[in-house]
Amino acid sequence: MNRIITIGREFGSGGRELGRRLAEALHMEYYDNEIITEIAKHTSLAEDYIQAVTEKRPHKLYPIRVGRSLLYVKNHALVQSASIFQEQSRILREMAERSDCVIVGRCAEFVLKEYHPFRIFIYAGMESKIRRCREKAPEKERLTDKEMTKQILEVDKNRSEYYSFYTGMTWGDKAHYDLCINSSGIDMKTAVNILAEFI
Amino acid sequence: MNRIITIGREFGSGGRELGRRLAEALHMEYYDNEIITEIAKHTSLAEDYIQAVTEKRPHKLYPIRVGRSLLYVKNHALVQSASIFQEQSRILREMAERSDCVIVGRCAEFVLKEYHPFRIFIYAGMESKIRRCREKAPEKERLTDKEMTKQILEVDKNRSEYYSFYTGMTWGDKAHYDLCINSSGIDMKTAVNILAEFI
Repeated sequence: MNRIITIGREFGSGGRELGRRLAEALHMEYYDNEIITEIAKHTSLAEDYIQAVTEKRPHKLYPIRVGRSLLYVKNHALVQSASIFQEQSRILREMAERSDCVIVGRCAEFVLKEYHPFRIFIYAGMESKIRRCREKAPEKERLTDKEMTKQILEVDKNRSEYYSFYTGMTWGDKAHYDLCINSSGIDMKTAVNILAEFI
Repeated sequence: MNRIITIGREFGSGGRELGRRLAEALHMEYYDNEIITEIAKHTSLAEDYIQAVTEKRPHKLYPIRVGRSLLYVKNHALVQSASIFQEQSRILREMAERSDCVIVGRCAEFVLKEYHPFRIFIYAGMESKIRRCREKAPEKERLTDKEMTKQILEVDKNRSEYYSFYTGMTWGDKAHYDLCINSSGIDMKTAVNILAEFI
Protein backbone atom coordinates (compact mmCIF):
# COMPACT_ATOMS: atom_id res chain seq x y z
CA MET A 1 0.00 0.00 0.00
CA ASN A 2 1.29 3.47 -0.86
CA ARG A 3 2.25 5.91 1.86
CA ILE A 4 -0.28 8.70 2.10
CA ILE A 5 0.10 11.91 4.10
CA THR A 6 -2.91 14.17 4.45
CA ILE A 7 -2.74 17.75 5.66
CA GLY A 8 -5.69 19.68 7.03
CA ARG A 9 -4.94 23.33 7.64
CA GLU A 10 -6.23 26.61 8.93
CA PHE A 11 -6.02 29.38 6.35
CA GLY A 12 -2.68 31.16 6.64
CA SER A 13 -1.01 28.50 8.74
CA GLY A 14 1.30 27.28 5.97
CA GLY A 15 -0.38 23.99 5.09
CA ARG A 16 0.52 24.16 1.41
CA GLU A 17 4.12 25.07 2.13
CA LEU A 18 4.37 22.20 4.61
CA GLY A 19 2.79 19.84 2.08
CA ARG A 20 5.04 20.83 -0.80
CA ARG A 21 8.20 20.65 1.28
CA LEU A 22 7.23 17.32 2.84
CA ALA A 23 6.46 15.81 -0.56
CA GLU A 24 9.83 17.02 -1.81
CA ALA A 25 11.71 15.69 1.22
CA LEU A 26 10.01 12.30 1.03
CA HIS A 27 9.95 12.04 -2.79
CA MET A 28 6.19 11.78 -2.87
CA GLU A 29 3.63 13.27 -5.21
CA TYR A 30 1.93 16.45 -4.05
CA TYR A 31 -1.70 17.37 -4.66
CA ASP A 32 -3.98 20.24 -3.84
CA ASN A 33 -5.42 22.30 -6.66
CA GLU A 34 -4.32 19.68 -9.13
CA ILE A 35 -7.21 17.60 -7.85
CA ILE A 36 -9.62 20.36 -8.72
CA THR A 37 -8.15 20.60 -12.19
CA GLU A 38 -8.62 16.88 -12.66
CA ILE A 39 -12.21 17.12 -11.46
CA ALA A 40 -12.84 19.93 -13.89
CA LYS A 41 -11.70 17.73 -16.76
CA HIS A 42 -14.11 15.00 -15.74
CA THR A 43 -17.20 17.05 -15.04
CA SER A 44 -16.67 19.77 -17.63
CA LEU A 45 -17.70 22.39 -15.10
CA ALA A 46 -15.71 25.59 -15.07
CA GLU A 47 -12.66 25.19 -12.87
CA ASP A 48 -13.08 28.44 -10.98
CA TYR A 49 -16.64 27.52 -10.13
CA ILE A 50 -15.54 24.16 -8.70
CA GLN A 51 -12.76 25.88 -6.83
CA ALA A 52 -15.36 28.16 -5.25
CA VAL A 53 -17.81 25.36 -4.46
CA THR A 54 -15.24 23.09 -2.90
CA GLU A 55 -14.04 25.87 -0.63
CA LYS A 56 -17.54 26.66 0.61
CA ARG A 57 -20.49 24.66 1.77
CA PRO A 58 -22.79 24.35 -1.21
CA HIS A 59 -25.90 26.25 -0.16
CA LYS A 60 -23.88 29.21 1.07
CA LEU A 61 -22.49 29.93 -2.35
CA TYR A 62 -25.31 29.26 -4.69
CA PRO A 63 -28.00 31.80 -3.74
CA ILE A 64 -25.71 34.63 -4.82
CA ARG A 65 -25.50 33.24 -8.32
CA VAL A 66 -28.99 31.97 -8.98
CA GLY A 67 -32.17 33.99 -8.60
CA ARG A 68 -34.67 31.23 -7.83
CA SER A 69 -36.43 30.13 -4.67
CA LEU A 70 -34.00 29.46 -1.85
CA LEU A 71 -35.30 25.94 -1.21
CA TYR A 72 -34.86 24.93 -4.82
CA VAL A 73 -31.45 26.54 -5.02
CA LYS A 74 -30.31 24.90 -1.80
CA ASN A 75 -31.24 21.45 -3.04
CA HIS A 76 -29.91 22.00 -6.50
CA ALA A 77 -26.59 23.32 -5.20
CA LEU A 78 -26.36 20.47 -2.75
CA VAL A 79 -26.87 17.80 -5.38
CA GLN A 80 -24.42 19.39 -7.75
CA SER A 81 -21.82 19.92 -5.05
CA ALA A 82 -22.32 16.42 -3.67
CA SER A 83 -21.57 15.00 -7.10
CA ILE A 84 -18.39 17.10 -7.18
CA PHE A 85 -17.49 15.72 -3.77
CA GLN A 86 -18.10 12.16 -5.01
CA GLU A 87 -15.98 12.75 -8.08
CA GLN A 88 -13.28 14.37 -6.00
CA SER A 89 -13.27 11.40 -3.62
CA ARG A 90 -12.96 9.00 -6.52
CA ILE A 91 -9.96 10.92 -7.82
CA LEU A 92 -8.35 11.04 -4.38
CA ARG A 93 -8.56 7.25 -4.23
CA GLU A 94 -7.14 6.97 -7.74
CA MET A 95 -4.16 9.08 -6.68
CA ALA A 96 -3.70 7.10 -3.48
CA GLU A 97 -3.59 3.91 -5.57
CA ARG A 98 -1.16 5.39 -8.07
CA SER A 99 1.75 6.43 -5.80
CA ASP A 100 2.92 7.74 -2.42
CA CYS A 101 1.45 11.19 -2.02
CA VAL A 102 0.84 14.23 0.14
CA ILE A 103 -2.63 15.70 -0.16
CA VAL A 104 -3.57 19.10 1.24
CA GLY A 105 -7.20 19.69 2.16
CA ARG A 106 -10.21 18.08 0.42
CA CYS A 107 -11.22 16.07 3.54
CA ALA A 108 -8.57 13.63 2.34
CA GLU A 109 -7.96 11.98 5.73
CA PHE A 110 -11.65 11.10 5.82
CA VAL A 111 -12.01 10.03 2.21
CA LEU A 112 -8.84 7.93 2.30
CA LYS A 113 -9.19 6.44 5.76
CA GLU A 114 -8.92 2.87 4.49
CA TYR A 115 -5.41 3.75 3.25
CA HIS A 116 -4.37 4.61 6.84
CA PRO A 117 -2.82 7.95 5.93
CA PHE A 118 -0.56 9.82 8.31
CA ARG A 119 -2.87 12.68 9.23
CA ILE A 120 -1.48 16.13 9.98
CA PHE A 121 -3.39 19.25 10.95
CA ILE A 122 -1.56 22.57 10.89
CA TYR A 123 -2.85 25.66 12.66
CA ALA A 124 -1.55 28.92 14.08
CA GLY A 125 -2.36 31.98 16.16
CA MET A 126 -4.14 34.81 14.30
CA GLU A 127 -1.14 37.14 14.47
CA SER A 128 1.05 34.56 12.78
CA LYS A 129 -1.59 33.83 10.13
CA ILE A 130 -1.94 37.51 9.26
CA ARG A 131 1.84 37.84 8.91
CA ARG A 132 2.00 34.81 6.65
CA CYS A 133 -0.90 36.01 4.47
CA ARG A 134 0.81 39.38 4.01
CA GLU A 135 4.07 37.70 3.00
CA LYS A 136 2.35 35.42 0.49
CA ALA A 137 -0.06 38.00 -0.95
CA PRO A 138 1.53 41.45 -0.86
CA GLU A 139 -1.60 42.96 -2.42
CA LYS A 140 -3.31 42.32 0.91
CA GLU A 141 -0.86 44.58 2.68
CA ARG A 142 -3.33 47.41 2.39
CA LEU A 143 -5.92 45.57 4.47
CA THR A 144 -6.02 46.35 8.19
CA ASP A 145 -5.45 43.57 10.72
CA LYS A 146 -9.16 43.63 11.45
CA GLU A 147 -10.05 43.16 7.78
CA MET A 148 -7.47 40.37 7.42
CA THR A 149 -8.80 38.62 10.52
CA LYS A 150 -12.31 38.78 9.12
CA GLN A 151 -11.21 37.26 5.80
CA ILE A 152 -9.21 34.51 7.48
CA LEU A 153 -12.07 33.58 9.81
CA GLU A 154 -14.49 33.55 6.89
CA VAL A 155 -12.37 31.12 4.86
CA ASP A 156 -11.97 28.84 7.88
CA LYS A 157 -15.67 29.02 8.67
CA ASN A 158 -16.40 27.82 5.15
CA ARG A 159 -13.83 25.05 5.41
CA SER A 160 -15.26 24.00 8.74
CA GLU A 161 -18.84 23.89 7.44
CA TYR A 162 -17.82 22.07 4.29
CA TYR A 163 -15.91 19.51 6.33
CA SER A 164 -18.70 18.78 8.80
CA PHE A 165 -21.22 18.67 5.99
CA TYR A 166 -19.40 15.88 4.16
CA THR A 167 -17.73 14.00 7.00
CA GLY A 168 -20.15 14.53 9.90
CA MET A 169 -17.11 15.34 12.03
CA THR A 170 -15.66 18.49 13.53
CA TRP A 171 -13.02 20.20 11.41
CA GLY A 172 -9.69 20.49 13.20
CA ASP A 173 -10.70 18.15 16.05
CA LYS A 174 -7.36 16.64 17.06
CA ALA A 175 -8.92 13.20 17.56
CA HIS A 176 -8.97 12.80 13.77
CA TYR A 177 -5.26 13.52 13.33
CA ASP A 178 -1.96 11.85 14.22
CA LEU A 179 -0.12 15.12 14.68
CA CYS A 180 -1.32 18.70 15.11
CA ILE A 181 1.31 21.37 14.58
CA ASN A 182 1.06 24.98 15.68
CA SER A 183 3.08 26.82 13.05
CA SER A 184 3.13 30.11 14.99
CA GLY A 185 6.65 29.84 16.27
CA ILE A 186 8.32 27.27 14.02
CA ASP A 187 10.75 27.44 11.14
CA MET A 188 9.03 25.49 8.38
CA LYS A 189 12.20 24.17 6.71
CA THR A 190 13.62 22.67 9.90
CA ALA A 191 10.21 21.35 10.91
CA VAL A 192 9.78 19.57 7.59
CA ASN A 193 13.16 17.81 7.77
CA ILE A 194 12.37 16.47 11.20
CA LEU A 195 8.76 15.67 10.35
CA ALA A 196 9.90 13.70 7.33
CA GLU A 197 12.00 11.56 9.66
CA PHE A 198 9.08 11.23 12.09
CA ILE A 199 6.73 9.97 9.41
CA MET B 1 16.20 31.56 30.31
CA ASN B 2 15.92 27.82 30.90
CA ARG B 3 14.27 25.57 28.34
CA ILE B 4 10.93 24.34 29.61
CA ILE B 5 8.81 21.60 28.06
CA THR B 6 5.31 21.09 29.37
CA ILE B 7 3.21 18.03 28.66
CA GLY B 8 -0.54 17.90 28.99
CA ARG B 9 -1.98 14.44 28.57
CA GLU B 10 -5.07 12.30 28.40
CA PHE B 11 -5.06 9.48 30.92
CA GLY B 12 -3.49 6.40 29.37
CA SER B 13 -1.91 8.19 26.43
CA GLY B 14 1.65 7.84 27.70
CA GLY B 15 2.33 11.40 28.84
CA ARG B 16 4.58 10.39 31.73
CA GLU B 17 6.56 7.98 29.57
CA LEU B 18 6.98 10.67 26.93
CA GLY B 19 8.03 13.16 29.59
CA ARG B 20 10.57 10.90 31.25
CA ARG B 21 12.12 9.82 27.97
CA LEU B 22 12.24 13.37 26.62
CA ALA B 23 13.90 14.65 29.78
CA GLU B 24 16.44 11.85 29.53
CA ALA B 25 17.13 12.49 25.85
CA LEU B 26 17.54 16.24 26.37
CA HIS B 27 19.31 16.03 29.75
CA MET B 28 16.62 18.01 31.48
CA GLU B 29 15.03 17.63 34.89
CA TYR B 30 11.72 15.78 35.00
CA TYR B 31 8.82 16.61 37.29
CA ASP B 32 5.37 15.27 37.94
CA ASN B 33 4.56 13.80 41.33
CA GLU B 34 7.77 15.30 42.73
CA ILE B 35 5.97 18.62 42.63
CA ILE B 36 3.22 17.22 44.80
CA THR B 37 5.77 15.93 47.28
CA GLU B 38 7.37 19.34 47.46
CA ILE B 39 3.99 20.97 48.03
CA ALA B 40 3.30 18.51 50.80
CA LYS B 41 6.49 19.57 52.57
CA HIS B 42 5.49 23.21 52.40
CA THR B 43 1.87 22.98 53.41
CA SER B 44 2.10 20.07 55.81
CA LEU B 45 -1.04 18.56 54.37
CA ALA B 46 -1.07 14.83 53.88
CA GLU B 47 0.44 13.97 50.52
CA ASP B 48 -2.26 11.58 49.41
CA TYR B 49 -4.90 14.19 50.13
CA ILE B 50 -3.08 16.73 47.97
CA GLN B 51 -2.66 14.13 45.29
CA ALA B 52 -6.41 13.59 45.32
CA VAL B 53 -7.27 17.30 45.38
CA THR B 54 -4.95 18.22 42.55
CA GLU B 55 -6.41 15.53 40.35
CA LYS B 56 -9.99 16.64 40.94
CA ARG B 57 -11.80 19.93 40.97
CA PRO B 58 -12.01 21.00 44.62
CA HIS B 59 -15.70 20.93 45.39
CA LYS B 60 -16.16 17.56 43.76
CA LEU B 61 -13.92 15.82 46.23
CA TYR B 62 -14.63 17.48 49.52
CA PRO B 63 -18.29 16.72 50.27
CA ILE B 64 -17.48 13.02 50.55
CA ARG B 65 -15.08 13.67 53.41
CA VAL B 66 -16.76 16.39 55.40
CA GLY B 67 -20.28 16.25 56.74
CA ARG B 68 -21.12 19.96 56.86
CA SER B 69 -23.37 22.12 54.71
CA LEU B 70 -22.52 21.83 51.05
CA LEU B 71 -22.12 25.57 50.58
CA TYR B 72 -19.65 25.85 53.44
CA VAL B 73 -17.75 22.78 52.32
CA LYS B 74 -17.63 24.01 48.75
CA ASN B 75 -16.13 27.33 49.76
CA HIS B 76 -13.79 25.79 52.26
CA ALA B 77 -12.52 23.19 49.79
CA LEU B 78 -12.18 25.83 47.14
CA VAL B 79 -10.07 28.11 49.31
CA GLN B 80 -7.91 25.26 50.48
CA SER B 81 -7.44 23.87 47.01
CA ALA B 82 -6.82 27.32 45.58
CA SER B 83 -4.03 27.78 48.08
CA ILE B 84 -2.56 24.45 46.98
CA PHE B 85 -2.78 25.63 43.39
CA GLN B 86 -1.00 28.88 44.33
CA GLU B 87 1.72 26.99 46.16
CA GLN B 88 2.05 24.53 43.30
CA SER B 89 2.38 27.43 40.83
CA ARG B 90 5.06 29.03 42.99
CA ILE B 91 7.02 25.77 43.02
CA LEU B 92 6.63 25.31 39.26
CA ARG B 93 8.19 28.75 38.78
CA GLU B 94 10.97 27.91 41.20
CA MET B 95 11.76 24.77 39.18
CA ALA B 96 11.60 26.68 35.90
CA GLU B 97 14.12 29.17 37.31
CA ARG B 98 16.39 26.44 38.61
CA SER B 99 17.10 24.42 35.44
CA ASP B 100 15.86 23.14 32.07
CA CYS B 101 12.92 20.87 32.78
CA VAL B 102 10.07 18.74 31.50
CA ILE B 103 6.86 19.06 33.51
CA VAL B 104 3.93 16.71 33.11
CA GLY B 105 0.47 18.00 34.01
CA ARG B 106 -0.27 20.62 36.70
CA CYS B 107 -1.50 23.23 34.16
CA ALA B 108 2.21 23.97 33.72
CA GLU B 109 1.94 25.51 30.24
CA PHE B 110 -0.50 28.03 31.71
CA VAL B 111 1.37 28.71 34.95
CA LEU B 112 4.72 29.07 33.19
CA LYS B 113 3.60 30.95 30.10
CA GLU B 114 6.06 33.80 30.69
CA TYR B 115 8.84 31.22 30.29
CA HIS B 116 7.62 30.42 26.76
CA PRO B 117 7.64 26.67 27.28
CA PHE B 118 7.41 24.24 24.38
CA ARG B 119 3.90 22.95 24.94
CA ILE B 120 2.99 19.37 24.07
CA PHE B 121 -0.37 17.65 24.44
CA ILE B 122 -0.53 13.90 24.06
CA TYR B 123 -3.75 12.00 23.45
CA ALA B 124 -4.94 8.71 22.02
CA GLY B 125 -7.92 6.67 20.92
CA MET B 126 -9.76 4.81 23.70
CA GLU B 127 -8.66 1.37 22.49
CA SER B 128 -5.01 2.40 22.68
CA LYS B 129 -5.48 3.96 26.14
CA ILE B 130 -7.09 0.81 27.51
CA ARG B 131 -4.21 -1.30 26.15
CA ARG B 132 -1.64 1.02 27.70
CA CYS B 133 -3.42 1.05 31.07
CA ARG B 134 -3.51 -2.76 31.12
CA GLU B 135 0.23 -2.93 30.33
CA LYS B 136 1.11 -0.42 33.06
CA ALA B 137 -1.25 -1.73 35.71
CA PRO B 138 -1.70 -5.48 35.35
CA GLU B 139 -4.09 -5.53 38.32
CA LYS B 140 -6.59 -3.76 36.06
CA GLU B 141 -6.59 -6.68 33.67
CA ARG B 142 -9.68 -8.03 35.39
CA LEU B 143 -11.72 -4.96 34.50
CA THR B 144 -13.84 -5.13 31.37
CA ASP B 145 -13.25 -2.66 28.53
CA LYS B 146 -16.43 -0.89 29.57
CA GLU B 147 -15.22 -0.49 33.16
CA MET B 148 -11.79 0.69 31.99
CA THR B 149 -13.38 3.21 29.62
CA LYS B 150 -15.50 4.56 32.46
CA GLN B 151 -12.43 4.97 34.71
CA ILE B 152 -10.38 6.65 31.99
CA LEU B 153 -13.18 9.06 31.10
CA GLU B 154 -13.68 9.87 34.78
CA VAL B 155 -10.01 10.78 35.32
CA ASP B 156 -10.00 12.94 32.20
CA LYS B 157 -13.26 14.61 33.20
CA ASN B 158 -11.65 15.59 36.49
CA ARG B 159 -8.52 16.84 34.77
CA SER B 160 -10.61 18.81 32.34
CA GLU B 161 -12.68 20.44 35.09
CA TYR B 162 -9.63 21.18 37.21
CA TYR B 163 -7.91 22.76 34.21
CA SER B 164 -10.80 25.01 33.19
CA PHE B 165 -11.39 25.96 36.80
CA TYR B 166 -7.87 27.32 37.27
CA THR B 167 -7.00 28.51 33.76
CA GLY B 168 -10.39 29.54 32.36
CA MET B 169 -9.44 27.65 29.21
CA THR B 170 -10.49 24.39 27.60
CA TRP B 171 -8.33 21.40 28.49
CA GLY B 172 -6.76 19.80 25.44
CA ASP B 173 -7.69 22.66 23.09
CA LYS B 174 -4.90 22.54 20.51
CA ALA B 175 -4.69 26.33 20.34
CA HIS B 176 -2.85 26.26 23.68
CA TYR B 177 -0.16 23.83 22.49
CA ASP B 178 2.71 23.84 20.02
CA LEU B 179 2.37 20.19 19.17
CA CYS B 180 -0.42 17.67 19.76
CA ILE B 181 0.55 14.03 19.36
CA ASN B 182 -1.82 11.13 18.93
CA SER B 183 0.04 8.25 20.57
CA SER B 184 -2.35 5.57 19.25
CA GLY B 185 -0.11 4.31 16.49
CA ILE B 186 3.36 5.49 17.42
CA ASP B 187 6.43 3.86 18.91
CA MET B 188 7.27 6.05 21.89
CA LYS B 189 11.05 5.51 21.78
CA THR B 190 11.40 6.54 18.16
CA ALA B 191 8.99 9.40 18.62
CA VAL B 192 10.99 10.77 21.54
CA ASN B 193 14.30 10.76 19.65
CA ILE B 194 12.78 12.70 16.81
CA LEU B 195 10.80 15.00 19.10
CA ALA B 196 13.95 15.82 21.01
CA GLU B 197 15.51 16.99 17.76
CA PHE B 198 12.37 18.95 16.86
CA ILE B 199 12.35 20.82 20.14
